[in-house]
Amino acid sequence: MSERINEECGVFGVYSKESKDQLAYMIDVGLSALQHRGEESCGIAINRDGLISYRKDLGLVSKVFPKHEIEALPEGKMGIGHVRYSTTGEARKENAQPMVIRHKKGNLAVVHNGNLINAYDLRAELEENGAIFTTTTDTEVICHVIVQERLKAKSIEEAVQNTMKRLKGSYSLLIMTSTKLLAARDPQGFKPLCMGKTENRIVFASESCALDITGAELVRDVKPGEIITVTNNEIKSIETSKDEPKGLCVFEYIYFARPDSVIDGISVHKFREDVGRCLAKQAPVEADIVAGVPDSGLDAALGYAKESGIHYDMAFTKSKYIGRTFIQNAQETRNELVGLKLNPIKVAVEGKRIILIDDSIVRGTTIRKIIAVLRKAGAKEVHLRIASPAFIDACYFGTDIDSKENLVTYNRTIDDIRKMVNADSLEYLNIDSLKEITKECNISNLCNGCFTGKYPIEVPKEIKKNTFEEIEL
Amino acid sequence: MSERINEECGVFGVYSKESKDQLAYMIDVGLSALQHRGEESCGIAINRDGLISYRKDLGLVSKVFPKHEIEALPEGKMGIGHVRYSTTGEARKENAQPMVIRHKKGNLAVVHNGNLINAYDLRAELEENGAIFTTTTDTEVICHVIVQERLKAKSIEEAVQNTMKRLKGSYSLLIMTSTKLLAARDPQGFKPLCMGKTENRIVFASESCALDITGAELVRDVKPGEIITVTNNEIKSIETSKDEPKGLCVFEYIYFARPDSVIDGISVHKFREDVGRCLAKQAPVEADIVAGVPDSGLDAALGYAKESGIHYDMAFTKSKYIGRTFIQNAQETRNELVGLKLNPIKVAVEGKRIILIDDSIVRGTTIRKIIAVLRKAGAKEVHLRIASPAFIDACYFGTDIDSKENLVTYNRTIDDIRKMVNADSLEYLNIDSLKEITKECNISNLCNGCFTGKYPIEVPKEIKKNTFEEIEL
Amino acid sequence: MSERINEECGVFGVYSKESKDQLAYMIDVGLSALQHRGEESCGIAINRDGLISYRKDLGLVSKVFPKHEIEALPEGKMGIGHVRYSTTGEARKENAQPMVIRHKKGNLAVVHNGNLINAYDLRAELEENGAIFTTTTDTEVICHVIVQERLKAKSIEEAVQNTMKRLKGSYSLLIMTSTKLLAARDPQGFKPLCMGKTENRIVFASESCALDITGAELVRDVKPGEIITVTNNEIKSIETSKDEPKGLCVFEYIYFARPDSVIDGISVHKFREDVGRCLAKQAPVEADIVAGVPDSGLDAALGYAKESGIHYDMAFTKSKYIGRTFIQNAQETRNELVGLKLNPIKVAVEGKRIILIDDSIVRGTTIRKIIAVLRKAGAKEVHLRIASPAFIDACYFGTDIDSKENLVTYNRTIDDIRKMVNADSLEYLNIDSLKEITKECNISNLCNGCFTGKYPIEVPKEIKKNTFEEIEL
Amino acid sequence: MSERINEECGVFGVYSKESKDQLAYMIDVGLSALQHRGEESCGIAINRDGLISYRKDLGLVSKVFPKHEIEALPEGKMGIGHVRYSTTGEARKENAQPMVIRHKKGNLAVVHNGNLINAYDLRAELEENGAIFTTTTDTEVICHVIVQERLKAKSIEEAVQNTMKRLKGSYSLLIMTSTKLLAARDPQGFKPLCMGKTENRIVFASESCALDITGAELVRDVKPGEIITVTNNEIKSIETSKDEPKGLCVFEYIYFARPDSVIDGISVHKFREDVGRCLAKQAPVEADIVAGVPDSGLDAALGYAKESGIHYDMAFTKSKYIGRTFIQNAQETRNELVGLKLNPIKVAVEGKRIILIDDSIVRGTTIRKIIAVLRKAGAKEVHLRIASPAFIDACYFGTDIDSKENLVTYNRTIDDIRKMVNADSLEYLNIDSLKEITKECNISNLCNGCFTGKYPIEVPKEIKKNTFEEIEL
Repeated sequence: MSERINEECGVFGVYSKESKDQLAYMIDVGLSALQHRGEESCGIAINRDGLISYRKDLGLVSKVFPKHEIEALPEGKMGIGHVRYSTTGEARKENAQPMVIRHKKGNLAVVHNGNLINAYDLRAELEENGAIFTTTTDTEVICHVIVQERLKAKSIEEAVQNTMKRLKGSYSLLIMTSTKLLAARDPQGFKPLCMGKTENRIVFASESCALDITGAELVRDVKPGEIITVTNNEIKSIETSKDEPKGLCVFEYIYFARPDSVIDGISVHKFREDVGRCLAKQAPVEADIVAGVPDSGLDAALGYAKESGIHYDMAFTKSKYIGRTFIQNAQETRNELVGLKLNPIKVAVEGKRIILIDDSIVRGTTIRKIIAVLRKAGAKEVHLRIASPAFIDACYFGTDIDSKENLVTYNRTIDDIRKMVNADSLEYLNIDSLKEITKECNISNLCNGCFTGKYPIEVPKEIKKNTFEEIEL
Repeated sequence: MSERINEECGVFGVYSKESKDQLAYMIDVGLSALQHRGEESCGIAINRDGLISYRKDLGLVSKVFPKHEIEALPEGKMGIGHVRYSTTGEARKENAQPMVIRHKKGNLAVVHNGNLINAYDLRAELEENGAIFTTTTDTEVICHVIVQERLKAKSIEEAVQNTMKRLKGSYSLLIMTSTKLLAARDPQGFKPLCMGKTENRIVFASESCALDITGAELVRDVKPGEIITVTNNEIKSIETSKDEPKGLCVFEYIYFARPDSVIDGISVHKFREDVGRCLAKQAPVEADIVAGVPDSGLDAALGYAKESGIHYDMAFTKSKYIGRTFIQNAQETRNELVGLKLNPIKVAVEGKRIILIDDSIVRGTTIRKIIAVLRKAGAKEVHLRIASPAFIDACYFGTDIDSKENLVTYNRTIDDIRKMVNADSLEYLNIDSLKEITKECNISNLCNGCFTGKYPIEVPKEIKKNTFEEIEL
Repeated sequence: MSERINEECGVFGVYSKESKDQLAYMIDVGLSALQHRGEESCGIAINRDGLISYRKDLGLVSKVFPKHEIEALPEGKMGIGHVRYSTTGEARKENAQPMVIRHKKGNLAVVHNGNLINAYDLRAELEENGAIFTTTTDTEVICHVIVQERLKAKSIEEAVQNTMKRLKGSYSLLIMTSTKLLAARDPQGFKPLCMGKTENRIVFASESCALDITGAELVRDVKPGEIITVTNNEIKSIETSKDEPKGLCVFEYIYFARPDSVIDGISVHKFREDVGRCLAKQAPVEADIVAGVPDSGLDAALGYAKESGIHYDMAFTKSKYIGRTFIQNAQETRNELVGLKLNPIKVAVEGKRIILIDDSIVRGTTIRKIIAVLRKAGAKEVHLRIASPAFIDACYFGTDIDSKENLVTYNRTIDDIRKMVNADSLEYLNIDSLKEITKECNISNLCNGCFTGKYPIEVPKEIKKNTFEEIEL
Repeated sequence: MSERINEECGVFGVYSKESKDQLAYMIDVGLSALQHRGEESCGIAINRDGLISYRKDLGLVSKVFPKHEIEALPEGKMGIGHVRYSTTGEARKENAQPMVIRHKKGNLAVVHNGNLINAYDLRAELEENGAIFTTTTDTEVICHVIVQERLKAKSIEEAVQNTMKRLKGSYSLLIMTSTKLLAARDPQGFKPLCMGKTENRIVFASESCALDITGAELVRDVKPGEIITVTNNEIKSIETSKDEPKGLCVFEYIYFARPDSVIDGISVHKFREDVGRCLAKQAPVEADIVAGVPDSGLDAALGYAKESGIHYDMAFTKSKYIGRTFIQNAQETRNELVGLKLNPIKVAVEGKRIILIDDSIVRGTTIRKIIAVLRKAGAKEVHLRIASPAFIDACYFGTDIDSKENLVTYNRTIDDIRKMVNADSLEYLNIDSLKEITKECNISNLCNGCFTGKYPIEVPKEIKKNTFEEIEL
């Protein structure tokens, strides 16, 4: 996917057998491994003897948590951390997580990955009763609901269970009270969440790569609708909503997750490679090399190459040092093609017929530039293959596309798109092929509503944004 | 007052005739003039077309608002700013103001100077209904109440009026909605708040010195219990609680305010000088010089000198560059007297009989060090005169003394205190003299409960702290 | 190469037809593309009307040059920039470049990539005459020599020519005077340096990838021993030392440079791929996949795969967000294998016989960990192939290995090394194969002294470090 | 003195009996007490086992040395620190001190307070021999000369002695080698420098107030022309240039130094008070109050009040929180009088005849604003009394006035000046009165060239600036 469609976040949590464990280091490292899920802001909250200390700010983990900031956090019994996505607009410091609050029953810290579709309605309902909001996050809405439910419930577990009945949409939550750490995943299981362990600690993370990097062993995924509670004496599971339809966001496999992660039992790398193989069968073409758009097109390109027997090659180098002002600074050179993070490897593409694999197309502007760059570097033909079906519908669960009008597929045929991006040929993965793959992978229920318009749960006609823009007059 | 008893804050607000006025500069300068009321954190919120942008952080105004941060704030119709006091404990970034929230009726930004005595009760009541808190400030409690009342009221003015019925304690508030700027002062008028104007702008500030520095002319003080609303077409006043007892905190004159400020019609400098004159009549002593403890004892020392005919002199230089770590770093030199911000001017004190004027004594430890330093520098006699009556009772409205046990006066006679601080003589201002002065100044009703135990409004036996420390188990 | 052997830097310079051109943006973008050559510090100097303004500091380009810092630099006629390598020891802010000085003839700014082998001797000689040093860089030594020569010469060109006679070792220099921009490359051409152009500007960069990203077209490489002077009216070339032996550092192709760069006419990507092909022919082995150690082993792995017909696959994901404290923080988890920037993709390696390609081995500790990680992830066999000959000798021109005793090859046979890193088989590229490749590539003269012990110029027995450690007693 | 004429710096040094003493804290505190001598930049260098670690940057001591930066400096045997003045132009990070260099004989760190009048000539001479400069400071010139002399001398003491023969102008130096700490003061003793001690440490500081604050006891002043060397076994004094004319800069007493300092045996406070008394006798006038311009006019005002019997009063409050952007931000309010750091205390000045004491007048613009502000606040008469003679000549030793044309006295009579600043009367201290006072104070030889045009040493007709502005063409 060349354009950003990232409404992602990453969560990480840890509970220790010891009451004064140096957990901030582990959370820091875990968040670094999840950084691809969100570069805007990050934060860590530590629970020491029931009191919660935290630090959060705009910026990458490496910037917000230099050594002396990690050491300024106390040792404790448990802790949670978060990385947040970067929108195109201005970043809001206030929206950084964990959200740490005080309510009638004590302290609470929450981190959240996902997107509620009834956040606006819940907020309207809460506001009707006098609730005030300091952020524009769904997380704050969730905190309010948990607190409301906690007032009526006997335990935090019961409160979270009742909260889940009121939330609609995608959410993977870590909830830290004075004495407990809870992990909860929405009934559809839209967003990933897994549990790991080391000798002394129980760990939760959005992706298994964060377990690997912190030396934790993957135990299992949190199940859709499941609440896992960790206290000193036990790990307790409550399974809710068993009968609700399931639907892990297919884009986790296609784009969001790191290839080395395993989600709900399926390797992300293998999924992508399988898609590539499938594309090779479905949409073969004579060519000299197969190349992927870094980084999310690489695994599928590998699969395409293996299946087709055409050589896999690198067509680009992707800079990993591109700063916030890069694009803008590069544009000062007044050259349309300049400013991409990708630079073609001329020797690899010159005079070649190239099968170019990208994970998806959103607006089409970036892939158009990429193809132009390849042609300028001498590519003879560029055959674009997309490692997912055509993206045709808005999504409120996982991507940031709230209107199909913004999609390149809107009112365009495949050939229109091909012309627009100036490819010699263009093929998307068949939706049936995708279903085949998921079947082979034993992924019973993926949400692929963005390709089909059919979602595991009903989506309202209009979804209002949870922002501060309305004005009292 | 040698020890910090500062529970103060400073507020500044401005409303412009223009809709895109560069207000951030003026607020920055105004807050600089109020910085003595709070060094911990500061913030500015600007309302542009109903949307509120803000920036707040720990640190002095000069640190939080370098040029590029001021310029990052938009031009707008109105804006408010705040400086916050520094407690002895760790500073909390979350507590910085303005508090900016969204509620059913729109956006709201609030700054607050004062101390509610029913904050804990209000919070408990709010929490009972599911309210959540992200700070430990009274301001957040006030926001909640305003929002609750706004839901039931026809206008923000009515909501604030009803809010004021529920708040007990001291508060001077600036409230910015999408379209209006409101200033409100508690019925007792514990905390100062004045209104000024320039050609194009209406300005509010905690002290008139902030009007002076921004080129605004003092119009008048906001009255106790008054709500002033500024909109495009008019400045409207609502006077509430006219019959309630009044009581501007006497410590505003004695210690908090800048000498160049005029509060409720009385010059702070003149008040202090009058106290000094009064002390000279009440507690004369033969001596060579009169000197004040910088800075809050200087004006009274001047009055004492004028009245007594004894030369006013400087006994100390006070460093203005003392950083946060200074005291601690100085202590590394392992010298008890080192680390004071004051250094004696030896030539001025050596061999001299000194009348030393301090504004008040809280715990007595600092004045003891100061006298020791004078003696080490050769002072022959040190006669301590305190420019206020003995501080004998806790105060929840203006100072940070929540228990009389922490006061030097607790279970000690004046002579006990004299011995403890090692003065040759010690006299406090008589409470009657204080009353005389206030009468002469035409200040009808000052709150001097800290000297008398009698407050303008009833104080509950126990006042619970509004903190996050309670733990759910 | 798994261990860092980076004594690299990157240089970038630009000269404009206009006298007030906004050059800082272009230099910023160019340095970002060269960031892989040095992450420790960076800097930019701009010449406006003969006066030189500059900013340099520790940190990545994106950190040192946020938007407001770029804009704080003036527009100008020419400018140069630098990125500096990170040593294992503490970074020294003082060593950041450009070095900007004033001398008898005016102002001078210099950036340097390379390593002098007579820096210590030159410094001793300079110190003998009273020179003082504020850094431990060769660049400062070079500045001193240029200035000495300038005093005797008629022009800066002549001075640089004479300077080059005194410098021994590797250097690619950009030298900015009040009116001229000079580029110079050592007689052996150890370090790369190329020239490009846009419509209005002449550009110099360490690698062509920095031209691409700034929209400049590659004109040609600066020749070994060549001095190019750019002034308003002309671009002038002086070729010196034509008869001296040439020797571009082979490690530029093997490891340092970006694959998309073209150095001295040879594509780095192609060179690496050719090496991989060569290895496949030289050291075949039956296996399931070929995988490279990211990033510098990937291109060779591609070549090996193409030649052998064994599938290329990804064995690892490499995190791009690893902060400065990452390794250390990860080690807090007390797991030897944790802390690598690489995480294996289990599905790709489990049960597989793997041909693993790395660019080189220095100390062997990292590759040992990498192989252990692969085995832990289930690899059945790991056949290590090194895309360069055995690294057997110290190098003072390009890598940071100043003593052969630190190399894994010291007193070890290939089989000893194989056992140490726990590979099933291990083969290095034959030195003859390397020569073959370079011949095919028409690279007449590479320096491969680290593999052969034979350098293009004589190396003294002992090379003293240019540091501040000596103590006067 | 209302306008800045500050070419000052502050130096602090310490030598410990222990080899691993935590000295950075003490230096930090000492520099804080000297901060009034320079707010632009500061730095600390610590010598541990002969190696010198340092940190220096733009900003106040409290900003450059937060706790973790102080702790990042090693414990050591000795250390030196520096605060540097702020010019009106842009601050140069490069000019921060200590200057730390390496030369043939080892490491050297130098801090300097003063102004050489032959810096340009020395630099030209040094440049002629190939010297290069990275700063525009005299300190770098001094380092060069010390190093040159060190090459020819048997010891650092001898080298410094010979260096002093070549330096012309004002300088108080602290010089730290690998094993010794040296303090040196120019033959005229233009700049102050004193020595103190604690139980375990020898301390040097520009002013005695820095000894007081660090718990050190004043031993004595370093004599004009004296070099004091501290090593493990002894404190050794070399007195040079005994016969040269002496001349401590009179402005140290008048303006630069803190009132609590004692310089060359004379209390700064007493000197200023004596001047005030003298003014009262010399230029009496009927008035209601005497007030000083804070802070440097206050002590003299006190003396004037004592002598005249007219009440001393405070006319202004001076803000101590004024940030770097304050003046500029305040000007956004488009009010000429706004932006002063001083705010009048209306009650003290309204309807009053005021004797206003300022320490000096440079350009006259600020005092004009101050008087305007007093009149606006209702002052009936303003009689300006200047606590020094008319400033008529350029000075290259202590103030930043390099041309008499910039002085308000240039081509103006006293009455012209009076009119320009809009005072009712204006009197300067008689030069004879000044001489009387200095005689009474037993200050044999002050430099008062700025009042008389006669300097202790000959001043060249033209003094060239030591800058980078010359351009090679």
